[in-house]
Amino acid sequence: MKHLLSVEDLGADGLDDMLRVTDSFVEVGERAIPKVPALRGKTVVSLFYEDSTRTRLSFETAAKRLSADTMNFSVSTSSVKKGESLRDTVETIEAMGVDAIIVRHSSSGVPWQVASWVDASVINAGDGWHEHPTQALLDCYTIRQARGSLEGLRIAIVGDIKHSRVARSDVLAFTLLGASVVLVAPPTLLPPSLEGWPVEVSHDLDEVVPKADVVYLLRMQKERMTEALLPSLREYTARYGLTVSRAAQLQESAIVMHPGPMNRGVEIAAEVADLPRSVITQQVRNGVAVRMAVLYMLLGSGVDLTHGSGTDRAA
Amino acid sequence: MKHLLSVEDLGADGLDDMLRVTDSFVEVGERAIPKVPALRGKTVVSLFYEDSTRTRLSFETAAKRLSADTMNFSVSTSSVKKGESLRDTVETIEAMGVDAIIVRHSSSGVPWQVASWVDASVINAGDGWHEHPTQALLDCYTIRQARGSLEGLRIAIVGDIKHSRVARSDVLAFTLLGASVVLVAPPTLLPPSLEGWPVEVSHDLDEVVPKADVVYLLRMQKERMTEALLPSLREYTARYGLTVSRAAQLQESAIVMHPGPMNRGVEIAAEVADLPRSVITQQVRNGVAVRMAVLYMLLGSGVDLTHGSGTDRAA
Amino acid sequence: MKHLLSVEDLGADGLDDMLRVTDSFVEVGERAIPKVPALRGKTVVSLFYEDSTRTRLSFETAAKRLSADTMNFSVSTSSVKKGESLRDTVETIEAMGVDAIIVRHSSSGVPWQVASWVDASVINAGDGWHEHPTQALLDCYTIRQARGSLEGLRIAIVGDIKHSRVARSDVLAFTLLGASVVLVAPPTLLPPSLEGWPVEVSHDLDEVVPKADVVYLLRMQKERMTEALLPSLREYTARYGLTVSRAAQLQESAIVMHPGPMNRGVEIAAEVADLPRSVITQQVRNGVAVRMAVLYMLLGSGVDLTHGSGTDRAA
Repeated sequence: MKHLLSVEDLGADGLDDMLRVTDSFVEVGERAIPKVPALRGKTVVSLFYEDSTRTRLSFETAAKRLSADTMNFSVSTSSVKKGESLRDTVETIEAMGVDAIIVRHSSSGVPWQVASWVDASVINAGDGWHEHPTQALLDCYTIRQARGSLEGLRIAIVGDIKHSRVARSDVLAFTLLGASVVLVAPPTLLPPSLEGWPVEVSHDLDEVVPKADVVYLLRMQKERMTEALLPSLREYTARYGLTVSRAAQLQESAIVMHPGPMNRGVEIAAEVADLPRSVITQQVRNGVAVRMAVLYMLLGSGVDLTHGSGTDRAA
Repeated sequence: MKHLLSVEDLGADGLDDMLRVTDSFVEVGERAIPKVPALRGKTVVSLFYEDSTRTRLSFETAAKRLSADTMNFSVSTSSVKKGESLRDTVETIEAMGVDAIIVRHSSSGVPWQVASWVDASVINAGDGWHEHPTQALLDCYTIRQARGSLEGLRIAIVGDIKHSRVARSDVLAFTLLGASVVLVAPPTLLPPSLEGWPVEVSHDLDEVVPKADVVYLLRMQKERMTEALLPSLREYTARYGLTVSRAAQLQESAIVMHPGPMNRGVEIAAEVADLPRSVITQQVRNGVAVRMAVLYMLLGSGVDLTHGSGTDRAA
Repeated sequence: MKHLLSVEDLGADGLDDMLRVTDSFVEVGERAIPKVPALRGKTVVSLFYEDSTRTRLSFETAAKRLSADTMNFSVSTSSVKKGESLRDTVETIEAMGVDAIIVRHSSSGVPWQVASWVDASVINAGDGWHEHPTQALLDCYTIRQARGSLEGLRIAIVGDIKHSRVARSDVLAFTLLGASVVLVAPPTLLPPSLEGWPVEVSHDLDEVVPKADVVYLLRMQKERMTEALLPSLREYTARYGLTVSRAAQLQESAIVMHPGPMNRGVEIAAEVADLPRSVITQQVRNGVAVRMAVLYMLLGSGVDLTHGSGTDRAA
């Protein structure tokens, strides 16, 4: 595997492999010195056309723990402002001697374009409304950690499905691993067509919550109101927020997830976010291990994961 | 000691310890390779809600010389802009596996809040008008270097005391180490009450200068004029600036200090800033060693400072 | 050699030395782990008063491959905004314990000033319209790689000569190494006087192209139009752009160069930029090796380049 562009490319086996390798890196993260030399001398660049300190830092932490060098190509202060084409920017970055490019862009498909231009590995860190595969991987890992397996679970994804690459990647990954997914959203926040999506749809969160094993809340962007897709945040919360009273209807073993950053009081009540069943911080923690696994699988070779140095491949 | 939040928490013994450990790191800084592996594998994050390249770089340099990994959580391009709460931001950062968080915030008390939420060590790099303990440490270290001890010294702090966390932390530290402090400022730039501050107050710099062992000038923010706290910068300089003629009244052994960045020609004449008695550059230099000492005392353990590698604790 | 301020200072011998050392680092760049410990423990700071992610990343990559620590003094968020003088900024940076300062500034001569204030090595990464010596080095290296030597070559530099530090440094370097240079530009984009420049001037690109061994295109800044130095970009392209039909007139062995970022369709046709004879990506690649050579020559000593560790000096 050279690139990580989509959950679709990974498939069920790829997902399984990646989650198994993640186990090794979760273990590395628990050491006193959570660092391995697996990618010493490799250079990883983040090329983010949308701001996201959260995702960027997660990748950067992962790369540093693998002893790679990291660099940021900050679009806001770069030659992109001077009218350079995406392709020329990417080829310039690669010419500096880069082993992996982590791309986030507001247009769907950009990571595929980038991958077609370079020899370096490309990781999709979010393309438009399309995919965000490392988010799906960390979500799957977190569910497995809490519930053992996704097989047979009923997962509700709630909120602005239409504009969400997280939802797209999660639907693909969750169903590939044997879960069934129900999307809960107002009609204006669903994609125009759901043909081919292996999901059910509901507009009634109260009916869904008591049967769900996982309730996955998406961030509600305030911009959706000005776009007239939403009457008001208050009304959204009343119908689609995980309020305290709704959360009280959850099964004992059910967990609550969110990709962050949360709008407490909008899609999730502040008290619900702080319940033990809310594994949101765990998602962040697993994000680093998952990204270590991805970088290691794409760039690593022949280095023992289990020691500070060595020659055998452990994972 | 887990956090460094205030000079008050440190106390005289804590100050003394920290300054003694700083000696080791000043020595490290003089080596051909000024680097020790004490914090290898540790991650230090700066979370600055106010711009300060100067302080941020000083901490970053300190962390790198201890072989720690460093990361910046840049507030201006982060999820903070998207309305994420401080607490969620901090918990997200910690979940990525961070050992120390260096916090600067415009509100007093924020570092204590952060410390209450996380397991990581928290260092206050300036909270509102309240405290800036590493600045006090580097100021104490610099005075000791120049004068042997603070015991019995007469230190004048001149300028905008009211809005200065540097002044607050310095007053505490200087007096804990046996110096007496006189504040020199126009009445509008003094705090409403000085009850409990172990200081004298003067409005006459000409009278103070000839008796002072240290003249510590605070930066005059131009904003104070628009706030009507100051008639004009020219008048401020005439009454409270360390002009050439005032500096001529200093004792032979007296030193001049400033936390930077200086407004040459306002609180300090350009020629005075360049006198041998002005130890302003020395303050910057010591800042790195002090911050190495702080990070080492909070995060280090069992690693010999005196070698490139080893097992004994030297400091 | 302590600083790299200009091609003029380097002279022909200095250029030759630097290009020879570059060879070693091109070789390092081809290794599986393209990293040497030559500058371990050294700190390299970039102090850019003009945005340039491209040049900054190139230097940063070079420094990291030599195992130096790197830091950015970002002017936009720094004490410079608070009115600090250049000199105080520079002395502050040096006091933190910096071994090299890489300076870019919109005023000619600033790197010399900086060098006069500090003990650290200073590298000019572009000063006003004046010089950009590492660009000249990488351009020379790239031409040698393609053509063996610059001796006797005919090099055309095309475009906005007047505002171009690249043109100035390249003219000096190319002629020092035995090439002859012809400048091709509209009269409004030539310097007021070319006295002392060892160049020919032409306003007719069609005549120059068939005789040139190298066509070096400068970036056309759109701002030049609002300054009334240029009637329109379209007219510029028609007369001074390397269009497909002009490129067809090139000699078989001729190469096309550009310092980037390109305005495809303005100074260079998109198809021409992608021809095998266009060595623009190669320029970027060589830029890292050249900057490794510069940093190594200024800061390194006694470390074997050819191994992961060692004591002999190889280059």
